[in-house]
Amino acid sequence: MPFARALMFSSASVKFREGNISLVQGASRGIGLEFVTQLLEKSKGNVVATCRKPNEAAGLLDLKNKFAERLDIHRLDLTVDSTIEEVAKSVKDKYGYLNLLINASGILSMPDILRPETTLSKVNREALLIAYEVNAVGPLLVTKHMWPLLKAGGGTGTERDFAMVASISARVGSIGDNHLGGWHSYRSSKAALNQLMKTVSVEFARKKDPIVCILLHPGTVDTDLSKPFQKNVPKDKLFTKEVSVRKLLSIINSAKSSDNGKFFAWDGQEIPW
Amino acid sequence: MPFARALMFSSASVKFREGNISLVQGASRGIGLEFVTQLLEKSKGNVVATCRKPNEAAGLLDLKNKFAERLDIHRLDLTVDSTIEEVAKSVKDKYGYLNLLINASGILSMPDILRPETTLSKVNREALLIAYEVNAVGPLLVTKHMWPLLKAGGGTGTERDFAMVASISARVGSIGDNHLGGWHSYRSSKAALNQLMKTVSVEFARKKDPIVCILLHPGTVDTDLSKPFQKNVPKDKLFTKEVSVRKLLSIINSAKSSDNGKFFAWDGQEIPW
Repeated sequence: MPFARALMFSSASVKFREGNISLVQGASRGIGLEFVTQLLEKSKGNVVATCRKPNEAAGLLDLKNKFAERLDIHRLDLTVDSTIEEVAKSVKDKYGYLNLLINASGILSMPDILRPETTLSKVNREALLIAYEVNAVGPLLVTKHMWPLLKAGGGTGTERDFAMVASISARVGSIGDNHLGGWHSYRSSKAALNQLMKTVSVEFARKKDPIVCILLHPGTVDTDLSKPFQKNVPKDKLFTKEVSVRKLLSIINSAKSSDNGKFFAWDGQEIPW
Repeated sequence: MPFARALMFSSASVKFREGNISLVQGASRGIGLEFVTQLLEKSKGNVVATCRKPNEAAGLLDLKNKFAERLDIHRLDLTVDSTIEEVAKSVKDKYGYLNLLINASGILSMPDILRPETTLSKVNREALLIAYEVNAVGPLLVTKHMWPLLKAGGGTGTERDFAMVASISARVGSIGDNHLGGWHSYRSSKAALNQLMKTVSVEFARKKDPIVCILLHPGTVDTDLSKPFQKNVPKDKLFTKEVSVRKLLSIINSAKSSDNGKFFAWDGQEIPW
């Protein structure tokens, strides 16, 4: 009953209470920034927001003015291990645990290096490797270093007994759903992310760790990432960040332990691998 | 009727005739070397074998003594673009086309850098990146550079009207079939390979290029790659290279254009993504 489920999601609200600690990596703009905003506005917990250049993250600095102690901003560069380790240490020292990790970072294009490929003849090594490192390796390494904190946190400040890792994937990462081709770097990095998070979910379940790990497709959202590719998207399929993140937070909020290792679209429907 | 299909495969024989040109990359040992051997012994076409260090490839040098003009050996390092381009140029100059490309290279472990991970706490960036570059990026770039030759070759020297790209993947690359976890680097690189080759197959079909692109799971084969991990494999599930490659060549030989973009196990059964 995917439709019924979608309805249920859209009416659910976020219910994180005081004591709940969320970390959003890739938080300077787009979907990541919107997650930070809604977690602060609609819930009562604290939020740790990370990005590559905190000093230039105007949206986060605005939120810091408004929410003060409830928001920590840290530098985290997915391509530099030490910055991931330092954030884990900061969270450990200040809070001792985490309840929610949102891997929101993602690249689709980068000036002079990575452009979504329209044909095999345009693929190149550098683009494939940078997309893989940022979209798949980075979120995995963040999850690795936050793992002990998530285990310690479990369901603190929520109505359930587990912590969560929610990683932003994309429907175009689905191999089974790939009917259009193209976008080699992005597609393969997201398929790899899906495999890595599925692998992690198996270990969490086997060790009975109180952590549920899911993958999310946000829909096509009106952000800097999708801007150059919105032309062919029907108007009712192009979401604002607010709408997409509200739907994704509903999925996170409604998740059950049996959802561990699954890949959901914004409407709560499972996406094939 | 997967069982019936498997039976059909096992009794089929390879039927490449004179004028057929196959390229096997990753040919110095293991499955790749066995592909070269069987293509030379059972068919009549020519074979181009590539590997990183031709001078040390004893198996290939033995075959060269026996098959002389029917075998070309070239250096190709998947991490160096120019070596891929040079092989494409050599094949173009000598034959002008290709009928079969077998991407047989693959790494699962590398001294001091890559070991199949038993837990998330052992994953590291370098291992993830090298597995991705060799197992996914390399085969894609070889396919990119051989594409014009495969298009020119089509079904020359075979009983069908298309060329083929067969890439050796692995069942552990399947996300849907991932019930054990672990092996993060290898699993994600093979999931990425599956996505890349699926993406390529969509473009071949759309452009009506006479090329069929498939992914193959060879089973657990008694090679250097699997040696450290054979302990828990039931004896009747550990194949010799000869048996595995005979089965895979039967699949390649029996493939139809409707198989483009599919992922087959050694017994002809499709594997979920």
